[in-house]
Amino acid sequence: MLACNETAALLRGWDDILIICHENPDGDALGSLFGLVRGLRSMGKRADWYCASPVPEKFAYLAQGVENTGLTPAHVLTVDVADQKLLGDAWEKSGGKIDLAIDHHGTHKAFAPARWVEPESAATAEMIWLLLKELGADLSREAADAVYTGIATDTGCFRFRNTTGRTLRLAAEAMEAGARAGELNRHLFETKSLAYFLAERHMLESMELFCGGKAAMVLLPQSFYAETGAREDEADAAVGQLRQIEGVLVGITIKERPNGEIKASLRTNPPVNASAICERLGGGGHAGAAGCTLAGMDMAQARETMKAACQAYLAEWEEANG
Amino acid sequence: MLACNETAALLRGWDDILIICHENPDGDALGSLFGLVRGLRSMGKRADWYCASPVPEKFAYLAQGVENTGLTPAHVLTVDVADQKLLGDAWEKSGGKIDLAIDHHGTHKAFAPARWVEPESAATAEMIWLLLKELGADLSREAADAVYTGIATDTGCFRFRNTTGRTLRLAAEAMEAGARAGELNRHLFETKSLAYFLAERHMLESMELFCGGKAAMVLLPQSFYAETGAREDEADAAVGQLRQIEGVLVGITIKERPNGEIKASLRTNPPVNASAICERLGGGGHAGAAGCTLAGMDMAQARETMKAACQAYLAEWEEANG
Repeated sequence: MLACNETAALLRGWDDILIICHENPDGDALGSLFGLVRGLRSMGKRADWYCASPVPEKFAYLAQGVENTGLTPAHVLTVDVADQKLLGDAWEKSGGKIDLAIDHHGTHKAFAPARWVEPESAATAEMIWLLLKELGADLSREAADAVYTGIATDTGCFRFRNTTGRTLRLAAEAMEAGARAGELNRHLFETKSLAYFLAERHMLESMELFCGGKAAMVLLPQSFYAETGAREDEADAAVGQLRQIEGVLVGITIKERPNGEIKASLRTNPPVNASAICERLGGGGHAGAAGCTLAGMDMAQARETMKAACQAYLAEWEEANG
Repeated sequence: MLACNETAALLRGWDDILIICHENPDGDALGSLFGLVRGLRSMGKRADWYCASPVPEKFAYLAQGVENTGLTPAHVLTVDVADQKLLGDAWEKSGGKIDLAIDHHGTHKAFAPARWVEPESAATAEMIWLLLKELGADLSREAADAVYTGIATDTGCFRFRNTTGRTLRLAAEAMEAGARAGELNRHLFETKSLAYFLAERHMLESMELFCGGKAAMVLLPQSFYAETGAREDEADAAVGQLRQIEGVLVGITIKERPNGEIKASLRTNPPVNASAICERLGGGGHAGAAGCTLAGMDMAQARETMKAACQAYLAEWEEANG
């Protein structure tokens, strides 16, 4: 396991670097990816990037001016990737050879020989900012925007419990380096389409409370997207409010993917551990946010399976904690 | 106009201090009030507090253990008060004699002989934290909770444009002094009653878009509160989302008060200046949040008056800025 300065030392000796994040990338994956690519290029290094999924329109600004050069990678590193399973076709693309992993997930699976993993970081982008400073890279406005985006999106704009004093200080540094926090916050958190509000209405109308109001569940079949016109991230944001309802400790969303695959996504409040519930079903994640795939089930079966898993967890927890 | 160190010097020479905030207090008013009372008491000074309105249940934790002693004030100061009109009966209570005003409103009316006014502060609580440090007061967990509450509530938990690098650094200091940011954020921002969601549904169903989708308006008659069971702050939070709808620059709420008085509350996005619109109608506030009282009007008249004021402002703005 490397420290920040050891990771910087390693990178100083590298060139022709390919940086990869996980598929279905979020703001932290892309903020970390483009922040690091920009930083390495500012040092005169050749660096390209790859993600198995297209960059969502919401985060397109991060990729602006960071075209790939088509280099043949001498070194491959991942950012914000907890498990090689999350790389999609990037695993083949890297020739199955990842040299370095930079990640903040407590569930990180050691798939790379060299790793800098800091679960106490609210976002991988926190680590990227520290790394850019350690490297003496150019802390440009674009790099600052990228890091701010990663930190802000992974902390719910500094609301979540993963936010520390350091998180706020690093975000302050990014702002002072030129990150357009006000505009980015409005773009990322304060702008909602009418489709979002339709998704929210669906959530309010269809949600099911159980476990005596401690758990709330919403089903999102493919038809939901057609009816509301909501994108997946809009739907996620709408149903993310389930656990905000007074008394609700577990918010569960059952999603039907375009390929028919059924996935469950959990958002919990302390003391409930979302990852502990999802691990029983072969999934994982963080204490407050986790997910799992419910292979071979239809929506109704997935619904009952998640209800049972949630009831069992809460029953055991109450037995253990009175 | 005083600076922080001059304000501290003044307070060092004082004792038997009464601290007052505005009526219908928000998190910044109460966070600043109780943060300062606790700080002054930690220095061995006698300090009491007064607010013309009861402390909302949501902020009751700030007042815990800060009972008044019934002292006869030798000095009176206000925190977060932009205009003596906002003091309610506290004006009489102070004998019409306010010695010092500490405030962050750009619209501050100079009603006290000594003033420390810092419009660049996102919250008055930012100034209170600087003042407590300048005074060498005890930065207790309770004082830190109070200051964090003020900063977080006045910045929408660091989302609004008033948030600066300093805002984040001072919040980090409060967290490191023991402010329970995670718990407070959940309490202040992440916990919503079912009544809140009913208020949100009312907002989604009844909102009116005009000025080509640049403005959105919701009416909140007294009957609304009876039907949803929502408190005023819950209703405010729900309708506060109006300006989050893509393309909306002005979110307007017309409220009927229990006494029948009609008030308009505006939340705007740049470049629209909420205060400029409300000042035409005898009100005021900040660029992004302002209000006015529509004396002698019913809801329908208030609705048309606000629409006209809003249309006139936007027309002039477009003429001026192409």
